Amino acid sequence: MRMRRKKHLDERLADCTARFIDMRVEDVRFDKEGESHHLDLATLFGNDNPVELEIGCGKGGFICQLAARHPEVNFLAVEKYANVLVTACEAAEAQGLTNIRFLWGDAEYLPRFIPAGCIRRLYLNFSTPFPKKRQATHRLTHPHFLTMYKGLLAPEATVIQKTDGRVFFQYSLESFSQTGYTLTAVSLDLHADGIEGNIVTEYEQKFIDQGLPIYRVEARVQREDT
Amino acid sequence: MRMRRKKHLDERLADCTARFIDMRVEDVRFDKEGESHHLDLATLFGNDNPVELEIGCGKGGFICQLAARHPEVNFLAVEKYANVLVTACEAAEAQGLTNIRFLWGDAEYLPRFIPAGCIRRLYLNFSTPFPKKRQATHRLTHPHFLTMYKGLLAPEATVIQKTDGRVFFQYSLESFSQTGYTLTAVSLDLHADGIEGNIVTEYEQKFIDQGLPIYRVEARVQREDT
Repeated sequence: MRMRRKKHLDERLADCTARFIDMRVEDVRFDKEGESHHLDLATLFGNDNPVELEIGCGKGGFICQLAARHPEVNFLAVEKYANVLVTACEAAEAQGLTNIRFLWGDAEYLPRFIPAGCIRRLYLNFSTPFPKKRQATHRLTHPHFLTMYKGLLAPEATVIQKTDGRVFFQYSLESFSQTGYTLTAVSLDLHADGIEGNIVTEYEQKFIDQGLPIYRVEARVQREDT
Repeated sequence: MRMRRKKHLDERLADCTARFIDMRVEDVRFDKEGESHHLDLATLFGNDNPVELEIGCGKGGFICQLAARHPEVNFLAVEKYANVLVTACEAAEAQGLTNIRFLWGDAEYLPRFIPAGCIRRLYLNFSTPFPKKRQATHRLTHPHFLTMYKGLLAPEATVIQKTDGRVFFQYSLESFSQTGYTLTAVSLDLHADGIEGNIVTEYEQKFIDQGLPIYRVEARVQREDT
């Protein structure tokens, strides 16, 4: 969803440069040298706690709640659109959360920034379903993304997806299964099943209020040697 | 579901002995010699057409329709309860279907009767969900069954499950995934998605009439060498 450019966006972004890393910089996107821009996560966070990642964090409601609950974990959150990224940065700032950093840009750039095998959990919350077949490559559970995530994930790490889109969820289950992930937890009605510790996003609450089901899956990376 | 013993059951069974094979015979169930009772399917059907299997065929509504549509395929249908098995046999007889044989007894006995690797499709239609955890081993998608099916299935063969049970379906998706099957088609609302050629069972129609979703999955056996 495209959003109207917010007022004073540039000023607001300038105020929180310490909170995010801009993955869209020209010399990074078009680096012909193949130079590595891998983040030194221990230096970035000032500790070597485990790291979890959300792709498409929007205004940061989910990731800020999660980070507040888990100070013993570090969180990276990717967002493409500055309009919402800036709100997420401001929310983390307001809550004094020191265990989140945001990444601004497309998920495609992640392997340049995140060292291989260091993410223990990856969250996909209500990602854009891209229902048209010709847009399928943009879905964050398309096989090319799931294969790329494997490079980022630690052994036995999980991808946790929530969505309200039935057809998107069906697609995702097939895609996980066909890309070498094992489904370890599937819920076709999250709020009927009641997952402990679930963080209800703003978007999710709307669906609950309408009595519509939320779909959720945990998919574990299969070990290469099995 | 236990059913009342129908009147004249023995007489009716005696009239259709050519239609079914009794897997429950004592010397078969308790064969200490480990002797093979494998059926010679080409002789049984009088041709070497491909063979498909339904486990839990009930009164045979599904398998008889499928067999009528596909005279170029042979069908085996397993049923535990004589009360419904006899109705299925009579239905096949009444419709003059020469490409079905029934197997009377528990699915556990199948590896003794069906030669390895010869089933190209296995149907599980509205199997009993056994919702209690302590009964989980009775579910026809329990890992011990899914592993056993692999022995019966041809390379690249699929198991096709339909159910109205949400929790049972969740369990089944996980179980398939964890037992080395790949999910190739998932529908969380079969009649909204509209699968071509779907045979609506009597039981299924009741759920459609109530506006409830039918869940369906196709799971393909993974090749051992991949």
